[in-house]
Parts: sequence; C-alpha cells; structure tokens
Amino acid sequence: MAFGWIDERAEARRRAGLVRTLRPRPAASPLLDLASNDYLGLARHPEVTEGAARAARVWGGGATGSRLVTGTTELHTELERELADFCGAEAALVFSSGYAANLAAVTALAPHGSLIVSDAGNHASLIDGCRLARGTTQVVAHADPEAVRKALHAHDGPAVVVCDTVFSVDGDAAPLARLAQVGREHGAGLVVDDAHGLGVLGDGGRGAPHAQGLAGADDVVVTVTLSKSLGSQGGAVLGPARVIDHLVNAARTFIFDTGLAPAAAGAALAALRLLRREPERAARARAVAGELHARLTAEGLAAVRPDAAVVSVRAPSPEGAVRWAAECRAVGLAVGCFRPPSVPDGVSRLRLTARADLTGDQLEHAVRVIRRTRP
Amino acid sequence: MAFGWIDERAEARRRAGLVRTLRPRPAASPLLDLASNDYLGLARHPEVTEGAARAARVWGGGATGSRLVTGTTELHTELERELADFCGAEAALVFSSGYAANLAAVTALAPHGSLIVSDAGNHASLIDGCRLARGTTQVVAHADPEAVRKALHAHDGPAVVVCDTVFSVDGDAAPLARLAQVGREHGAGLVVDDAHGLGVLGDGGRGAPHAQGLAGADDVVVTVTLSKSLGSQGGAVLGPARVIDHLVNAARTFIFDTGLAPAAAGAALAALRLLRREPERAARARAVAGELHARLTAEGLAAVRPDAAVVSVRAPSPEGAVRWAAECRAVGLAVGCFRPPSVPDGVSRLRLTARADLTGDQLEHAVRVIRRTRP
Repeated sequence: MAFGWIDERAEARRRAGLVRTLRPRPAASPLLDLASNDYLGLARHPEVTEGAARAARVWGGGATGSRLVTGTTELHTELERELADFCGAEAALVFSSGYAANLAAVTALAPHGSLIVSDAGNHASLIDGCRLARGTTQVVAHADPEAVRKALHAHDGPAVVVCDTVFSVDGDAAPLARLAQVGREHGAGLVVDDAHGLGVLGDGGRGAPHAQGLAGADDVVVTVTLSKSLGSQGGAVLGPARVIDHLVNAARTFIFDTGLAPAAAGAALAALRLLRREPERAARARAVAGELHARLTAEGLAAVRPDAAVVSVRAPSPEGAVRWAAECRAVGLAVGCFRPPSVPDGVSRLRLTARADLTGDQLEHAVRVIRRTRP
Repeated sequence: MAFGWIDERAEARRRAGLVRTLRPRPAASPLLDLASNDYLGLARHPEVTEGAARAARVWGGGATGSRLVTGTTELHTELERELADFCGAEAALVFSSGYAANLAAVTALAPHGSLIVSDAGNHASLIDGCRLARGTTQVVAHADPEAVRKALHAHDGPAVVVCDTVFSVDGDAAPLARLAQVGREHGAGLVVDDAHGLGVLGDGGRGAPHAQGLAGADDVVVTVTLSKSLGSQGGAVLGPARVIDHLVNAARTFIFDTGLAPAAAGAALAALRLLRREPERAARARAVAGELHARLTAEGLAAVRPDAAVVSVRAPSPEGAVRWAAECRAVGLAVGCFRPPSVPDGVSRLRLTARADLTGDQLEHAVRVIRRTRP
C-alpha cells in the first residue's frame, strides 16, 4: 500500500516517546509565554496589528504573484529600504519566510565548484540551503573558527562560511568577528542568519553583525526573520546591492514563490519603526534573559548563559523534557521543549525565551514553576 | 574577493538579455491585471481584506513561533478543517508558503530507498523537494503516464509520483486520473500540487483532484497555495490524517518554520467561505480563460489551450518577450513574461491569467493590445 511505511515510523516514534502533536492556542491564552520568539513583545502591540490591518486594506490580502511579476508592492520596497538602513546594509530583499531567505542566500551564493563551510549547530533552513546548493558542504565543529580556517585553507575557489549568529537551541552566539577574519584571510564570504539577533543584539537591536562591526561589509550577507523580534512573518536577506541583485536573478525561493503578504510587510514595518523609537526594548530583552539565567542557575538548574534572549535548560531525557514542559503548562507557564531531531547534540531541553515586556513578578513566578516541576 | 564571481554572472545575464528587475507597484495600479494569480479576483475583496485585518487584531501580527511551539492558533486549525472539508480530504496542514508545503510533502514522503517519479515540467518547489528528499528522483517526460509506469516498474520499494495538476507556465493539466491508476498498479503514492487548480477546477473550485475523483483517496496527497485563488499567502498539504500526522513529525519546513501569520490565515479563510457561497466564480474563471484563448487564436497568436486559468502565448525570443510585455505595460496592460530559466523548454512566452472578475470589454481590450504589440 502507498505510504504503508508511515505507520512503522509512527509506531517507532511512539515507542521512543517522540510523538509531536499540535496544541492550538486561543486568542486570549491564559498562559504566561516563555516559549514564543516574540522577544520584544511586539506581536500583539496595537501599532503592529494596525500596521497589518491597514496594509491588508490598502494593498490586499495577498501579494497576488511572485515578486518579479505582480508580487512587489511599494510597501515591500519601503520595508526593504528601512530594514537595510536599520541594519546598516546596502540593500535588502524580503521573502515569505526566514526559511526561504536562508535557502535563497545559501543556494545563490554557493555555485558549483564552491565550498560551503557550515557550523554543526546551524538551523535546519541553513542545512537545507547547503543540501540544495550546487557547492560542496563541509560541516565543521560548532563555533570553531580554527576548524573553519582549516576547511577554507584546503579549498581553492569561491567559498562561503555559513552560520547562525545566535543558535536557536542553546541561545549561544557564534564567534562572528573571528569567523569574518578567517573568511577574509581566505577571500571567503560570510552568510550569517541573525534570526535571533535582530531586535535583541547590537545598538538598539540592529543585530549581531552590526554589533560586531560587520554591517555593510562587502563580504558579509545577513539573513533575518520578520517573525521573531518584529512580531510578523517573513524573512529578509541583507547585503551589498550586487549580492541582492544576484538573488533577484538567481534565487529560486525568491523567483518562484509568491511575495510576502502585505499585512506581514505592514506589521514588520510598524514593528521596525516602533523599535527605532523605543530602542531600549532590545537591551531590556537581554537584561530579562540575563536575569532569568541567573535565577535558574541559583536554583541549581543547568541553564546555559544566554548571549541573546534564549535561555536553554537541560533535561534528563526526551520524556523528562516533555513531562517537565507539560507540568509547567498545567500550572499556566508556556515553555518550549526541544527534543531529537530538533537538537543537534541529542540532548533534550526546555527552551525559555525572555521577552522585553516580562515583569519581575512574572519572571519570579516562571522560575518558581520551573524549579518546582523539574524532573 | 568574496562574491567576485557574481559580477561575471551579472555580465553574462546582461549579454543574454536575461536581467530581472523588480517593478514595485502602487496600491491603486492603473494597469489592467492579466499577470497575477488572483484567479478569482479575491485579493482585494473587502471580505478577504477584512478577514486579514480582523485576524491581525484578534491574534496578533505574527504566529510568534513554530507550529509545534506557540505558532498554532485555533484560527490555523479552523482554516485547516475548512480547507480539508472543502477539498474532500481527511486532514490538512497549513504552511507559510506553497513552496514550503511542497518541500514538506515531497521530502517527508520520499525516504531513503524510495523512488520519486517527477514530471519534467514540475514547479521549482517540487524540484527542490525532490533534491532535498532522501529518496532517488527519476525525472520523466512531461505528462507521460507510460514513462511513469516504466519508472515505477523498474523499482522495488516505496515510491511516489510527483506532479503539478496544472502546469504554471503553459497552463496545461496533468493526466491525473491515469497517473493515479498507474501509481495504484505499482503501490505508489501520488503527490500533486494543485496550486493552479484550487478555486478554478472541479465542482465550485474544489480543485483538480476533486474533479478527477481522487479527493480523499488514501494514496493521494494534494498541496495547494493560499496565495492564488484564495488571495492570501501560504500553502497547505491535504491528505489522509496519518500522512498529515507524519508531516507534523517529520517535515522540516513544518517543524522549523514560524507558523503562518494570522492575517494570512484569516484572509484565506474569508476567501474560502466566499468561494463556498459563490461557487460560480470558479466556472467564470475557466470561461474567461477559454474566451481569452479563443480570441487570441482567432488573431493568429500562438496561444496554448488552457486547462485552467493560465493562457500562455509563445514569443519569438527572450528579448522579444520582454519587449512585448513592456509594450503592453506601456499602454496599461500587465502581462506575465516568462523566460529562461523559468521555462523548462527554453521557449519564452507571455503568460496571461484569466480572472473571474474580468469583464468582456476588458478582455476585448487586452486582446487588442496584445495583438497590436506583438513582436
């Protein structure tokens, strides 16, 4: 029978305690949210939701076509200009998701004969970009510039170093400045995914590359999401104008995808303007993360020191992590739970996210619940 | 220098007349639109834009996380239930784009050791799905069930046949019923992309698989977009509940992508309800396409008979196609222009789309312009 093998997989998942199920949430969730990537608390901000609503009314429910046909509105261009300006890049290109932006950047910048040096902890979308690219991928040890140097040294021809700026699972930052230096010594480009850096790191949330003095560099390409700090949906690639022009002409997930919906562009633009006006939100998200880590550690929990707004806490097993997260949820606290295959090292953990708008009381309550429910 | 090779590529594109540039459109475009995929004219419908605006207000500017963490709202579930019900499928799963839905369906349903039989005319997203999948891909001649039969016959183990239902470039339909039959003879599943069929083909726009008696079959998986007939953004996979459960657990573009923005879900849901209430829109889109083809043919133009709402007209060269489209645009008519590498056969063409809400006068005017500007 067609798809018969699926049942065996399902059975294997059940035995391993790795079944995933969706939990639809209501509009007014009673849970305290330490699970989403809404780092600045902007997804429900009235200016952001109004930005979405207004854009839908003015521009329509969808972009109506691919970006090169009818799917580019002046709203898309406005968002691209303001994003590039904010992050200090020459140009930007908006995609329907960060996933699509990563597929685009990696595939279009790693042609046949080129080398991609990819960090072992990279996000799935970067990994899929490597797998789709015509270049050859060499996976190197996590956050290890020396390993990158060795890989580049052994290669002759175009090369890119591909890396998250902040790793989604443990919330640790990549050694960006050193990676850029190693890349430059070998004439390699740097493609970095700042999904968890934008809005949190750098001056007023301008992101990790900006914080490391890499903004606007002609050998650095940055991808971001509009769906985390900016409370919307979508992704973007930021970089030199010639690189962006190249993507317009060569990136399949740009050419063959419908443009981002106006409402998403409008929400992201409103959030970006809000962040410019209230730059302290970025520092506040970092401070909340630092405080969360300190309190968890003081309780003896195995929390990883956060470099941005993600705080990871090790769990003893996949089942233990699931139970822990479920018990938190049962008493009103939403936390993320990462298990194989979403964790590169096979270690399950709770994934907590700091939000700029969490109060001290909420933080204290969250830590109390996490401590009390620990397996 | 990093990315130095990009300049050579840009120069080669210039020489070949294949440079692509974005043309941002204003909110109130003066152009008559025969270029978008807004087949039912719903993208600007007040119920659809209000659906987007309301959803943004109630649910926020973004989904705030991946579907398995915080990115599934009750609105997503509602859309999935109504989509599945409309198309006659057991279950549905919504993605941030049709591209992501296709990557998910193909990669999750073609494990290591399996065979993917892929039509030579398939959309880029299906092709990328094949390239990412662990199974082995065999590309077969366009719309050729006998070639599919041969490929399946030579393989032992799980297999899927992957195909657009309506091909984007020429607007021709796949021989779905025969493909399903051939697949069944060999125990292979069928994965079909109904992006250009939903809303246009089948009873009240229920799509090509529904029209061919394949809706709800346990060996058929259908992908759709929310960004064409439904005037929004996003994609979905429709199929047996066990297949959908499998995708929730195994599809990387589901697990690692932020959920679809509430505004896009709200717009799609409003459009779907509108289509249920006004099923004649689907037949009207088909009738407009038929009339457009008849008139173009009567003028001696090389138009392909449309199976849905896309009418393709051959152009003599890439430059000729670009000039033709530009001259149409200069006098107020927006038409699509497809050139290599967006055309599998290397033949450039104008791509016209029929909309259910085009009037007879608009149609007559469009044909007059296209005839007058022909190269």
